[in-house]
Amino acid sequence: MENVVVIGGDGFCGWPTALHLSRRGYGVNIVDNLSRRRIDEELGATSLTPIAPIDQRIAAWKEISGREIGFDKIDVALEFDALVALLNEVKPTAIVHFGEQRAAPYSMRGLSEKRYTVDNNIAATHNILAAVAASGRDIHVVHLGTMGVYGYDGDGLEIPEGYQQVKVTGDDGAEFEREILYPTNPGSVYHMTKSMDQLMFQFYAKNDQLRITDLHQGIVWGTQTPETRLDERLINRFDYDGDYGTVLNRFLMQAAVGHPLSVHGTGGQTRAFIHIRDTVRCIELAIANPPAKGERVVIRNQMAETHRVRDLAKLVASMTGVQVAFVDNPRKEAAENDLRVSNQSFRDLGLKPTLLAEGLLEETVDIAEKYVDRYRPSTIAACSVWTTMNKPGIVKGVDRIEVSAA
Amino acid sequence: MENVVVIGGDGFCGWPTALHLSRRGYGVNIVDNLSRRRIDEELGATSLTPIAPIDQRIAAWKEISGREIGFDKIDVALEFDALVALLNEVKPTAIVHFGEQRAAPYSMRGLSEKRYTVDNNIAATHNILAAVAASGRDIHVVHLGTMGVYGYDGDGLEIPEGYQQVKVTGDDGAEFEREILYPTNPGSVYHMTKSMDQLMFQFYAKNDQLRITDLHQGIVWGTQTPETRLDERLINRFDYDGDYGTVLNRFLMQAAVGHPLSVHGTGGQTRAFIHIRDTVRCIELAIANPPAKGERVVIRNQMAETHRVRDLAKLVASMTGVQVAFVDNPRKEAAENDLRVSNQSFRDLGLKPTLLAEGLLEETVDIAEKYVDRYRPSTIAACSVWTTMNKPGIVKGVDRIEVSAA
Repeated sequence: MENVVVIGGDGFCGWPTALHLSRRGYGVNIVDNLSRRRIDEELGATSLTPIAPIDQRIAAWKEISGREIGFDKIDVALEFDALVALLNEVKPTAIVHFGEQRAAPYSMRGLSEKRYTVDNNIAATHNILAAVAASGRDIHVVHLGTMGVYGYDGDGLEIPEGYQQVKVTGDDGAEFEREILYPTNPGSVYHMTKSMDQLMFQFYAKNDQLRITDLHQGIVWGTQTPETRLDERLINRFDYDGDYGTVLNRFLMQAAVGHPLSVHGTGGQTRAFIHIRDTVRCIELAIANPPAKGERVVIRNQMAETHRVRDLAKLVASMTGVQVAFVDNPRKEAAENDLRVSNQSFRDLGLKPTLLAEGLLEETVDIAEKYVDRYRPSTIAACSVWTTMNKPGIVKGVDRIEVSAA
Repeated sequence: MENVVVIGGDGFCGWPTALHLSRRGYGVNIVDNLSRRRIDEELGATSLTPIAPIDQRIAAWKEISGREIGFDKIDVALEFDALVALLNEVKPTAIVHFGEQRAAPYSMRGLSEKRYTVDNNIAATHNILAAVAASGRDIHVVHLGTMGVYGYDGDGLEIPEGYQQVKVTGDDGAEFEREILYPTNPGSVYHMTKSMDQLMFQFYAKNDQLRITDLHQGIVWGTQTPETRLDERLINRFDYDGDYGTVLNRFLMQAAVGHPLSVHGTGGQTRAFIHIRDTVRCIELAIANPPAKGERVVIRNQMAETHRVRDLAKLVASMTGVQVAFVDNPRKEAAENDLRVSNQSFRDLGLKPTLLAEGLLEETVDIAEKYVDRYRPSTIAACSVWTTMNKPGIVKGVDRIEVSAA
């Protein structure tokens, strides 16, 4: 049996990934510092769905599937020796690395959140790479990156999977081709750390011949996977707060409580999306298809489709009958952007993704409406501002009034 | 009077920069955690020149020049609040940021050194940027980067100053130009951190309109500046150990004790060089020529000339009469490389650099021969290995025997 260590395996993507891999026959060990639960407390936020403690989650999985999942509470950014000891004990063939602070708004909330995001994410990634290199074991590192590293003011070209062919002019005036890492243009401190991760992957792949896959993921929507729906103790998170809740979840929540959907700016922002069911399948495909030793980092775009925010709002509004309200945008970003992304690599591996139009009703009925009594209205508004020039007051008007009226 | 904070102002580049700026009329505050002195103790190494404690250095400067230099022992990677308080008190118009672990061999020595280099360098740079952004003050950040971020297996083109024009092919098959950050290809964990710094500069320049200059410096040689030679208590460091001693200093030291000069590999490695006197002038020029607010990061190549290592060895051998010995190379790098670098930006600002052929005799007589009695033979060999595949035994033979016979 191949063993896989899932770092951040208590989180929104990590937990269903751990269950999916366990069901598929991998020996799974979760490593998590439980920071996501701690940040919930810090923000006064909570998952709409009732999340069981990690030991109950794992015991329920054992009861239902008969399979064991290991758990170690290790902070990989700080407890390096414990990480090394774990790798020697578990002897994994792959590590799935979700061990990073993953909310852009949280990373822009204030100085301590900016510094935490940088210190945590960079040290976590580097410690994993250094530990794998030092172990002498052939461990494939599969990292969850984000489409967001590229920013959203591109030149209209389809975003390739990591690398781009460009032409440069030689001293003799003749042009020649070279391949570059597709240039990043991060829009938050969080996205910046994922761009920095890329450089560490590049170095460790070259210097230590580590096998590394970097998955540039779109916004993940949906809550349940076939495994998490087996028992309520296995249920996955549904975040709708202003920091961790992605735009679709906030719309679903607003619709469930009968409020207008608050669209920031013109809603012309185009984003990439993928269902959590496809996230876990992609990770399994990535684990099964590592780069050869000594090969460059494999970068795959992990997304199914793109949508404009206002079109999402229309879709949710048409399903639920709520209104759409346009409010100020706290982010520093283009009002309107196009986004075209190649996902050829996962399509070639056989992925047939779930699309929004098919899965959205399930989210509305089975999650947002079912658990509406657990809704905490005060946490839904975005409170982060992108620069010192934007004072907190920019998030105002309709958005706040709407929400506090709930 | 304009105030400048020199972070890392007790180090090899930082100290002469602090004195130079003080003499030119800037109010200078040194911030340093004295880590370089601590690492000397850790390595059992010491500067060939006798370095006075920081308080004696500053007192001597006051005595000789009549000028005050402030000093705060702050670790900018860890003591964020102290850094913020200092900026509010000093109100600098510029920060010169030398506050990073700067030796590639030290960064590859082992796991704790790799982790220290990443944790320290990234947190230091990010804390400075976050503190400046939060201060609301218009503080120009001048950072010391390195030519080494680009690696030494280029495509033969002259390395530009940070940015490169490339052509990409649009969906309609037509080509168009775009500008990219010249791609990095770091050859050590240390160089990797400097590549990562670039991404933080790019983000903070864009998001917070910080004014940032990144200086990609060559290997600095020479010891004294007009200020440090005014009194022996002001003397600058001369490192010759296997971690912090650059190739030229090791040659000068070997020559002074009558040993063959140990050239790693074929000595075909081409590197960029600059004299410490020109380093301090370049920094003054960089401070005086900041980017406009909202402009992209200004990147300047801070180097005077390039040489192959074996040609350096020949130069030192011809001056001193010692032999040249070729030994194994502990680094993972091309045996031979070309290197052409644009330094137009500083030439346009009036820099007329000191060249090796002019200044080398002074180093031999005034430093290496004068202080030869302080030489500690055991520290000169390179002990770091670049991968777990290279066991320590690779640094062997002529090099070690030579050195331990001293």
